[in-house]
Amino acid sequence: MTTLVLVAASGLAGETAAAAAGYDQIVAVDDDRGRWGTVVGGAKVIGPVEVVADTGADLVICTGSGRVRRMLVERLLDYGVTPDRFATIIHPDASVAAGCEVGPGSILLAGVRLTSQVSVGRHVVVMPNAVFTHDDIVADFATVCAGVALGGGVVVGEAAYLGMSSSVRQHVTIGADSVLGMGSVLLHDLPVGETWVGVPARPVRVAV
Amino acid sequence: MTTLVLVAASGLAGETAAAAAGYDQIVAVDDDRGRWGTVVGGAKVIGPVEVVADTGADLVICTGSGRVRRMLVERLLDYGVTPDRFATIIHPDASVAAGCEVGPGSILLAGVRLTSQVSVGRHVVVMPNAVFTHDDIVADFATVCAGVALGGGVVVGEAAYLGMSSSVRQHVTIGADSVLGMGSVLLHDLPVGETWVGVPARPVRVAV
Amino acid sequence: MTTLVLVAASGLAGETAAAAAGYDQIVAVDDDRGRWGTVVGGAKVIGPVEVVADTGADLVICTGSGRVRRMLVERLLDYGVTPDRFATIIHPDASVAAGCEVGPGSILLAGVRLTSQVSVGRHVVVMPNAVFTHDDIVADFATVCAGVALGGGVVVGEAAYLGMSSSVRQHVTIGADSVLGMGSVLLHDLPVGETWVGVPARPVRVAV
Repeated sequence: MTTLVLVAASGLAGETAAAAAGYDQIVAVDDDRGRWGTVVGGAKVIGPVEVVADTGADLVICTGSGRVRRMLVERLLDYGVTPDRFATIIHPDASVAAGCEVGPGSILLAGVRLTSQVSVGRHVVVMPNAVFTHDDIVADFATVCAGVALGGGVVVGEAAYLGMSSSVRQHVTIGADSVLGMGSVLLHDLPVGETWVGVPARPVRVAV
Repeated sequence: MTTLVLVAASGLAGETAAAAAGYDQIVAVDDDRGRWGTVVGGAKVIGPVEVVADTGADLVICTGSGRVRRMLVERLLDYGVTPDRFATIIHPDASVAAGCEVGPGSILLAGVRLTSQVSVGRHVVVMPNAVFTHDDIVADFATVCAGVALGGGVVVGEAAYLGMSSSVRQHVTIGADSVLGMGSVLLHDLPVGETWVGVPARPVRVAV
Repeated sequence: MTTLVLVAASGLAGETAAAAAGYDQIVAVDDDRGRWGTVVGGAKVIGPVEVVADTGADLVICTGSGRVRRMLVERLLDYGVTPDRFATIIHPDASVAAGCEVGPGSILLAGVRLTSQVSVGRHVVVMPNAVFTHDDIVADFATVCAGVALGGGVVVGEAAYLGMSSSVRQHVTIGADSVLGMGSVLLHDLPVGETWVGVPARPVRVAV
């Protein structure tokens, strides 16, 4: 029997459960005792995060924040979880062209499009109807919200966050740990750790 | 023989006809005599709205305005139409996760995504590629245009109108009979009856 | 054996190869000698553009610029290529309603939606998840980027360029050879040859 464990009983966990195909059962874990025994997106919450260590089940981390996903991965590795246990979840209504790569632990929801030669790293979350075009590179732990559109040759840094319906001009680079606001139009490189918003996008503050 | 009647021979009627599957025939009704005998989206306009009362056919109201849909529902109920005759039309290329609900009379066009635990009321119109995420609640007679993206836990009030490509931050509430303009980015609650536009969205006037 | 030739070994060529179904082989041509013998999106670059003249293969022009596509069509016609050799490429995950038309040489990528009575001309490129609604007319050589949304009855002129995630109000006309910027919201007619940007879109300069 194949089992998928959703790590964090979040809204994203329910969305991921709906996207995952081919598992005999899907359960969740969460450190919040109050959620144990409850159900999220059809998946029962069976206990705290550390219970996954002793099973051979597939895992996927379902926190909305890439930084938190990164911390959880480190914690799970400390528990002795091997990296090959992280599943790649791609909704059947997503389109991933031959020649594209999606790393373990990443989640692509419905309507996501990877047109050609796109590289998506590990533990990346891509919400519905986001579009990655030719030669885009999306690093580990990035979060790409619904309806985002990337031109060709865009590079998205580790744990960067792209808000809903934002769009990025071709060949632009987005730094690690940066934030692009909802509906923003990014025409120039976004430096590491900064938050930019607007049409066109401009810096609002240096992240601390 | 199963029949679907499109109430109002509009552009949306043609779009709804293209989304409806499994009917033996699709026809339309419209109060405009000039349209009788014409064809909209493959559906022949057979007469005025009241002719639907005496048939047992499924019905779906195809006016772009939620307020007009509400008036037509009231009128049809006056004619003796029972609420169970309103069909739910979901395009085969939409994605509705298990656990989501879509009410009678609602229309979801191609590429619409309901990710998890989404509740869509009655007589709601959702244009292509709009995205509703976890725990969104969309009330009766709302109209959601193409490419709209809602964060998790958003509440959309009755007969609200969300313009093309607008996006709404998680946990925001949109009041009844309000309007969010095209391409707007809504970060805060939108009060009942108001019209907000821009990035970020701000009020432009109180609706009269 | 059926062959499709991608004219221009571009990023769009790789995307088009991924969208094309039913061909026994796909190859590319490009005037850049440096690309001969390389592979783009799985398609080998077999030589310069003029080599296509002597084959009976299907053709599709894969330059991002509509003006360049127009020049290449003229050049291929000079070589004796007949217009019936231009293929229409529609990704299997696009939705084209019955009653819509898409001309030869045009490319519709994944998630593109044509809802009802839409007319798309020749050598039009439509990137993923763009939405055309009822009665839209898109002229030859237009380029429509990812996530664009058009209201009903919009007219897009020849070789016009609509940037990513832009949206256009219903019944608006976009002039030939014009540009609508990324993320822009177009509420009024856009004159021939002009570039408009912003929310709402305003002219930034008259194209030279």
